[in-house]
Amino acid sequence: MTIKSNKKMKDIAKNLLIERGATIEEIANIVFELQKKYIPSLTMVDCTDAIERVLDKREVQNAVLTGIELDKLAEENKLSEPLETLINSDNPLYGIDEILVLSIVNVYGSIGFTNFGYVDKLKPGIIGTLDEAGKDPNKCNTFLDDIVGAIAAAAASSIAHNFEEDEE
Amino acid sequence: MTIKSNKKMKDIAKNLLIERGATIEEIANIVFELQKKYIPSLTMVDCTDAIERVLDKREVQNAVLTGIELDKLAEENKLSEPLETLINSDNPLYGIDEILVLSIVNVYGSIGFTNFGYVDKLKPGIIGTLDEAGKDPNKCNTFLDDIVGAIAAAAASSIAHNFEEDEE
Amino acid sequence: MTIKSNKKMKDIAKNLLIERGATIEEIANIVFELQKKYIPSLTMVDCTDAIERVLDKREVQNAVLTGIELDKLAEENKLSEPLETLINSDNPLYGIDEILVLSIVNVYGSIGFTNFGYVDKLKPGIIGTLDEAGKDPNKCNTFLDDIVGAIAAAAASSIAHNFEEDEE
Amino acid sequence: MTIKSNKKMKDIAKNLLIERGATIEEIANIVFELQKKYIPSLTMVDCTDAIERVLDKREVQNAVLTGIELDKLAEENKLSEPLETLINSDNPLYGIDEILVLSIVNVYGSIGFTNFGYVDKLKPGIIGTLDEAGKDPNKCNTFLDDIVGAIAAAAASSIAHNFEEDEE
Repeated sequence: MTIKSNKKMKDIAKNLLIERGATIEEIANIVFELQKKYIPSLTMVDCTDAIERVLDKREVQNAVLTGIELDKLAEENKLSEPLETLINSDNPLYGIDEILVLSIVNVYGSIGFTNFGYVDKLKPGIIGTLDEAGKDPNKCNTFLDDIVGAIAAAAASSIAHNFEEDEE
Repeated sequence: MTIKSNKKMKDIAKNLLIERGATIEEIANIVFELQKKYIPSLTMVDCTDAIERVLDKREVQNAVLTGIELDKLAEENKLSEPLETLINSDNPLYGIDEILVLSIVNVYGSIGFTNFGYVDKLKPGIIGTLDEAGKDPNKCNTFLDDIVGAIAAAAASSIAHNFEEDEE
Repeated sequence: MTIKSNKKMKDIAKNLLIERGATIEEIANIVFELQKKYIPSLTMVDCTDAIERVLDKREVQNAVLTGIELDKLAEENKLSEPLETLINSDNPLYGIDEILVLSIVNVYGSIGFTNFGYVDKLKPGIIGTLDEAGKDPNKCNTFLDDIVGAIAAAAASSIAHNFEEDEE
Repeated sequence: MTIKSNKKMKDIAKNLLIERGATIEEIANIVFELQKKYIPSLTMVDCTDAIERVLDKREVQNAVLTGIELDKLAEENKLSEPLETLINSDNPLYGIDEILVLSIVNVYGSIGFTNFGYVDKLKPGIIGTLDEAGKDPNKCNTFLDDIVGAIAAAAASSIAHNFEEDEE
């Protein structure tokens, strides 16, 4: 198999997110909540567009594919111990989930970085739903909730940059 | 002048924080709020000790000295334009304040990273006080509030690591 | 299975490195080459001790376990496409291998960071051997060579910090 | 003074680089050396264009302005001690220069990150010239050589991404 084009990689990443329970619309809700206080004219279309820009990035696609693969393998008990238990139980000292999504968060500079920490702690909307669902022993969303938080944070950051430049 | 020993560098960094309005006790209050829900037996002494460990690190001392110097120079109108205005007005797209404190946040792994984003957004306790005080045209806390947030986040992360290991 | 103690996690990580072809002594050779020009009195025992300190860290153990697991799964064709091909062919735009090892590199500050970039490009000693071996279609060292480079870089950084402090 | 538009900020950053001794052409030479082995058809115009794209980014402009300001203040003995000595002597444990340029390196993902470590160690071309010139007691290039290395590394990374996509 040859390496997929950027367009195909993006479709694969998007389909994986939806298949695992995170629609673009639900991620857009988080972006809207993060940015509406700064930009009163913000629309849901702005938020959806920003998520699409984030998903265009190769680094983001790679993080989505890798993180969701690890979640699925953990769910199917296909990882070696003790990694299986560390990931499946979302152990607070595991921390590789937060490191992996740096490849998403970093691409839009420091606003992405602080927004990510914020949503990772407060778990608004779909992030909290995914985190809660992951506590079922037959389900693992250890990487997915961080991936969704990082995409929302990066999209919020992209919006902040665009609006600032429009004002100049 | 020769380079100061680690002990002297730590004292200089601590004195700068206090001089600019951030006491160890007020930073410890934030650490306590961040970690008490995870560790019911947590004491304020645990939090103060953790801040002392964070301030032992050379990377942390260097970030404190550099960030506070930039705040003071901006306050005294001694920076070139447009940097003077960017820092003095705490411009949201400046972002170097959040980058600088990565040298504090990174040393304790990914828990430090998410805690920092959280306190940077919510600005609890002394962080909010410093941020508010910085809005006075004669005052600049652009770097200081991020430095305090990063020290609190790193201390919280250090506590999380220590308690987990004690339980094993 | 309960989560292993730090001591047990360290043994598991060390055994995985050895099993995959990276002995502590070979990693120590790289550390020695990186630091001997700065510290003429440096010994191989200093280098081995520094690697042991690096492997004590939970972040490092987690990165070793996760990266080597992905290499092994790719080798056994157990990953989904296109991730299987991206990892197995060590695609230059994959980049998650370099992101994962940030959890190793970050813990000793910025010296670790530049040392890592350097060894990752030049691939001295065992890093080059592992990289070359990974080109065999039945073998995958995509994460392993970066893990070894990151451990060597972090150990070199730990030595630099210790020697500087001794001189003060 | 109002905040400058992105176009004006870019011009200010470029002029500062040139004024301090780093022309776009000399930075392009480093980019060319970094990428020519991977892309035989690479031209110097490709390299110059990539540097222009890097300098379009607000994060990059902010890092250039802040780092060069600190170099100039150190050169004029206008910083407080011990920060003045740490920066003016390019102390190897200072490390804030490498942290600051993360805001440049991070924007193009992990290829930028390893390229930066590599040029920071080997100091090819203008980077070595600037580093050497900074050893004069009346001159300080502590931040400048890292800024130039980071811009070159980010530009090399941008080229790698573009060529890969053209091939698909």
